[in-house]
Amino acid sequence: MKAYWCELAWLGGDTATADVLLQTSGDRITAVHAGVPCPPEAVRLRGLTLPGMANAHSHAFHRVLRGRTQVGTGSFWTWREQMYAAAAQLNPDSYHRLARAVYGEMALAGITCVGEFHYLHHGAGGTPYADPNAMGAALVAAAGDAGLRITLLDTCYLRGGIGVEPNETQRRFSDGDALSWAARASALSSLESPTSRIGAAVHSVRAVDPASIEVVAAWAAQRTAVLHAHVSEQKAENEQCIEAYGLTPTALLAERGVLDARFTAVHATHLAVADIGLYGTSGCSICMCPTTERDLADGIGPAMQLRDAGARLSLGTDSQAVIDMFEEARAVELDERLASRVRGSHDAPSLLRAATRNGHAGLGWHEAGSLQVGGLADFTSLRLDTVRTAGTSMVTALESAVFAAGAADVHHVVVDGEIIVADGRHVRIDVAAELASVIGELMGQ
Amino acid sequence: MKAYWCELAWLGGDTATADVLLQTSGDRITAVHAGVPCPPEAVRLRGLTLPGMANAHSHAFHRVLRGRTQVGTGSFWTWREQMYAAAAQLNPDSYHRLARAVYGEMALAGITCVGEFHYLHHGAGGTPYADPNAMGAALVAAAGDAGLRITLLDTCYLRGGIGVEPNETQRRFSDGDALSWAARASALSSLESPTSRIGAAVHSVRAVDPASIEVVAAWAAQRTAVLHAHVSEQKAENEQCIEAYGLTPTALLAERGVLDARFTAVHATHLAVADIGLYGTSGCSICMCPTTERDLADGIGPAMQLRDAGARLSLGTDSQAVIDMFEEARAVELDERLASRVRGSHDAPSLLRAATRNGHAGLGWHEAGSLQVGGLADFTSLRLDTVRTAGTSMVTALESAVFAAGAADVHHVVVDGEIIVADGRHVRIDVAAELASVIGELMGQ
Repeated sequence: MKAYWCELAWLGGDTATADVLLQTSGDRITAVHAGVPCPPEAVRLRGLTLPGMANAHSHAFHRVLRGRTQVGTGSFWTWREQMYAAAAQLNPDSYHRLARAVYGEMALAGITCVGEFHYLHHGAGGTPYADPNAMGAALVAAAGDAGLRITLLDTCYLRGGIGVEPNETQRRFSDGDALSWAARASALSSLESPTSRIGAAVHSVRAVDPASIEVVAAWAAQRTAVLHAHVSEQKAENEQCIEAYGLTPTALLAERGVLDARFTAVHATHLAVADIGLYGTSGCSICMCPTTERDLADGIGPAMQLRDAGARLSLGTDSQAVIDMFEEARAVELDERLASRVRGSHDAPSLLRAATRNGHAGLGWHEAGSLQVGGLADFTSLRLDTVRTAGTSMVTALESAVFAAGAADVHHVVVDGEIIVADGRHVRIDVAAELASVIGELMGQ
Repeated sequence: MKAYWCELAWLGGDTATADVLLQTSGDRITAVHAGVPCPPEAVRLRGLTLPGMANAHSHAFHRVLRGRTQVGTGSFWTWREQMYAAAAQLNPDSYHRLARAVYGEMALAGITCVGEFHYLHHGAGGTPYADPNAMGAALVAAAGDAGLRITLLDTCYLRGGIGVEPNETQRRFSDGDALSWAARASALSSLESPTSRIGAAVHSVRAVDPASIEVVAAWAAQRTAVLHAHVSEQKAENEQCIEAYGLTPTALLAERGVLDARFTAVHATHLAVADIGLYGTSGCSICMCPTTERDLADGIGPAMQLRDAGARLSLGTDSQAVIDMFEEARAVELDERLASRVRGSHDAPSLLRAATRNGHAGLGWHEAGSLQVGGLADFTSLRLDTVRTAGTSMVTALESAVFAAGAADVHHVVVDGEIIVADGRHVRIDVAAELASVIGELMGQ
């Protein structure tokens, strides 16, 4: 049994609550008391304590591209060539070391749970490793090293585009057909643990044919596993899908039984009105990745309309251009302001819910993302006395967190009741040094 | 004579240069040697050293609003009411203490020169203080305390809108008429020093009538002082200006002799094609404040078209929603990506020029903003070994600075050859503590 006392904590309402004692036993919160003094045995958490944040869409290896893909001009599609070149460098050992450092960076940013959208399955030319899940195992081990909860979203990726064979790099992503994907994915159950779960993903309607989409959806339904897919990040995908199938990507996924409360559409940037309605009535999650959507020139998705239709918003760092959930959260609202010319479509509590409870739900961790009795004891504390956050008021502490704070303000992070980040340092990993070492090795200086 | 040795320094080209020795004498750079080892007497600057950054548009007192104005819905105009309420709290003493802390935050972010767009001139009801420039003097003193160079852009503000008398708050901004403004502004010359200069500003075509705009422009021309104005931040301003004068704000300013190489248009978000041409052919600066323009739901300005027409881009933190010039710099390109769906309209060197040389030029400091012999010895070093920047390569260090770094990565800042920030701490001011204290006093907790 442990005790953590928070100067301020967000218990789910419109404002933060002062002097909150969180008691934990094992991996669970066993008591929440507001307005009490700090007992001598408690760890004192300064500033504002939030539920641990869920990064609902991650490609860990994209971290090697940060900064390096900002030279010259281009598009999403030219960026993708650079991303493929980075992917080509990786094997289970280097992937493990890279992901461990990247997940360490996430921990330092207050992320306690990551959804890894994983499609780099096989060796050169598509030859499976001796353990066909060696790459997925590397990611799960990396999350364990960093102290993070993980949902490994094992991704079906079968073709280079509609009617296009996979190219050399893409062959490493492909299991050949959906039943082979399902067989390999089924073997992932050995990786499940109290901190790791398995979900499924359809890479996109570009990379998976409709019949195979049905196979993946059925696999996920049978296990009540979460299911994710990239949807309509670029207009070109919509055009190709409509030309091939006469349906938008969303309508195609709906037709093939994908859309329900276990489904998360990632990006959903370029949607038809009917698509928005489908997500809303199906109770889907929409994972927005606004810093990536800025970086890749995707555009601004219809966050407000999706929410108003009934969809749940979650957030992901995706390409790791930055790893900062506060920046992702405020970017949803700030980009909405640019598009709508109105302030306040998404308030701070709703953006914090996207970063915490909604993200966890979309990754299948319904027992995480809230500071409540019986919930998983995952939480994140940020300083309100840095130059960025100083001057906040108690009644607007949530607004300061979302609109003024950054990853650098996170000081303590707890997962399963155990401290994984203390005073801004990871307790086990020298994150910056490991990032520099493994990225230097993979990409050269 | 002092010596600073930089692991990497940006000398103005497309990439950074390794092992650069900067020698200084008094306030000037006296030698720049590349590819030399670190002499024993030199201060060793890790990571990447840039010219000091110029924050070309600041309203220091808006810092009290950070976080607090993010509750509820609204527009630029409802936000302005909250901003006016904050302004009403200030007197020369509290303004000095607030600005000193805010400029301290800027120093920590690597800003070495601030353009303060200053219109809070008078006491309650518009009654001048005993020293009619007491508020401006408070700002200049605050910059001195923080070690920053300042251009005080003394702002003419005469009316509440086109044909509208100033309201209670706005009376504090008004000198009554343009000649009275000019008389008071002329007395500011006593505040000039090696680190402080005086410029002029027309608040906007809303707040200054055309004849008075001519007076301000003539005053600035006579002194070869820089001249700034808010232009077309909101569409409503354009509509009102066209209705009243049959001209866009830009065309009106051009007609009244404002547009030349000493002029900076701030925001320039909603421009006609002809406006863009006018700024280009006149060689004006355009100060974009993209984090504020996001925050206030202004929209995305035509940065690329302005640059292609021949205008110089500079950057400002404006409302202090964040104080981070790296975030401002990348936001120009990232918001351009959202609008154009193309990557790479503004490359890292051009964005760094906006943050350094262009900003200084627009504030009248042509001898600052470049690491070159004879230039002012102002520079900023940032770490390339934090979790945000680790993994950068030497050849893409500029891209990492612009697209991955943040204010928290700045470790050393030098102005006039003297260190004002060392290892991320201000050498004279406990910035976070002073911010908390003065904002708490002004706004209450």
